[in-house]
Amino acid sequence: MVDAITLYMLDKPGVLKKLSDYIAKKNINIVYTYMHVESKGYASTYLELDHVEDITELITGLKSFPEVINVESSSSMDKVWGKRIIIIGGGAQVSQVALGAITEADRHNIRGERISVDTLPLAGEQKLEEAVRAVCSLSRVGVLVLAGSLMGGSIVNAIDEVKKSGIKVISLNMVGSVRDHADLVVTDPVQAGVMAVMTVANTAKFDIDRVNEVL
Amino acid sequence: MVDAITLYMLDKPGVLKKLSDYIAKKNINIVYTYMHVESKGYASTYLELDHVEDITELITGLKSFPEVINVESSSSMDKVWGKRIIIIGGGAQVSQVALGAITEADRHNIRGERISVDTLPLAGEQKLEEAVRAVCSLSRVGVLVLAGSLMGGSIVNAIDEVKKSGIKVISLNMVGSVRDHADLVVTDPVQAGVMAVMTVANTAKFDIDRVNEVL
Repeated sequence: MVDAITLYMLDKPGVLKKLSDYIAKKNINIVYTYMHVESKGYASTYLELDHVEDITELITGLKSFPEVINVESSSSMDKVWGKRIIIIGGGAQVSQVALGAITEADRHNIRGERISVDTLPLAGEQKLEEAVRAVCSLSRVGVLVLAGSLMGGSIVNAIDEVKKSGIKVISLNMVGSVRDHADLVVTDPVQAGVMAVMTVANTAKFDIDRVNEVL
Repeated sequence: MVDAITLYMLDKPGVLKKLSDYIAKKNINIVYTYMHVESKGYASTYLELDHVEDITELITGLKSFPEVINVESSSSMDKVWGKRIIIIGGGAQVSQVALGAITEADRHNIRGERISVDTLPLAGEQKLEEAVRAVCSLSRVGVLVLAGSLMGGSIVNAIDEVKKSGIKVISLNMVGSVRDHADLVVTDPVQAGVMAVMTVANTAKFDIDRVNEVL
């Protein structure tokens, strides 16, 4: 269980380091940070922290620093955005996979789960390889769906990395070697999207590893 | 211009702090970190760094630490995922906005830009308020689209925060006070998605602030 806070602070060298050191001295792990400049001289840093014993006491302590304007408790990304489905490929097909995934996610989110559907319409072997590899650096990804008509070449190396990191890969039934490296191949893009969400949903009885056919 | 690296390291207390201190001593700003446990005893940390004079020298220096297994140069999130459109609301309508946005983003991404479309199908005033507020903590968001049929109440407070942070807000033409707080109101969800992307795209001549009608 992570705690999330947002620090509003002076945008000066060493400020974030000073505050991070204070947090670390309490044996708290900082597992996520995103700092951006709000306006001239002021920055905002969103942090996710693990192993916080007393979040109220931490916030009070951080507020006592002269460089800190304010500290707010925030909702964690897992609570708001939940598990992620990433869909990459040609726009027409990404849209249809998204249609299926969003509709299915809606059904689960309305019953208390949290699943979000993120898309990147992109073409070109090198660009796709780079994007697929970058999926490994994103938090909370459960499934990657490759939605296109022709995908192969060096993209498969990136797919193998994604699978090694624990993310399941669904591919549309298309031309090229990518489909041979997927955990599941689905012909109907809408169904592919639905199945991607079923793969991560708590309340679905779908086990992607038990499907041994092309749908 | 940020540089991105991925550290593969031992998952032990103080390791990330030790490496962050080393980076900070070189007057490099750490603007983004995401750490996760890869397997028992090993962690992976993705970092984005600002003001790096010599990335090769930094990587070599980090590799010299005994706790570090490997360091790789990575593609930054801005390069891979680019500018973001976030679409939140009822599944049916989020899907249609996504259809428009993905199709339009495809047209720009094929010409060298990078725009991604992220969605969260969600209902309920408190949940929507929380999610809209959380948009401010995400990186690279250009536009938020609220896609529903009835939205009001406390959601508008969160919308005002989003707008203050520089993100444009598009609302579907729906019942409730949310539409009165948006920068732009659009009736056709597909068009709303297209316009959201046009708002952020470099190559589009669309200026959202010059539209003074409900479409």
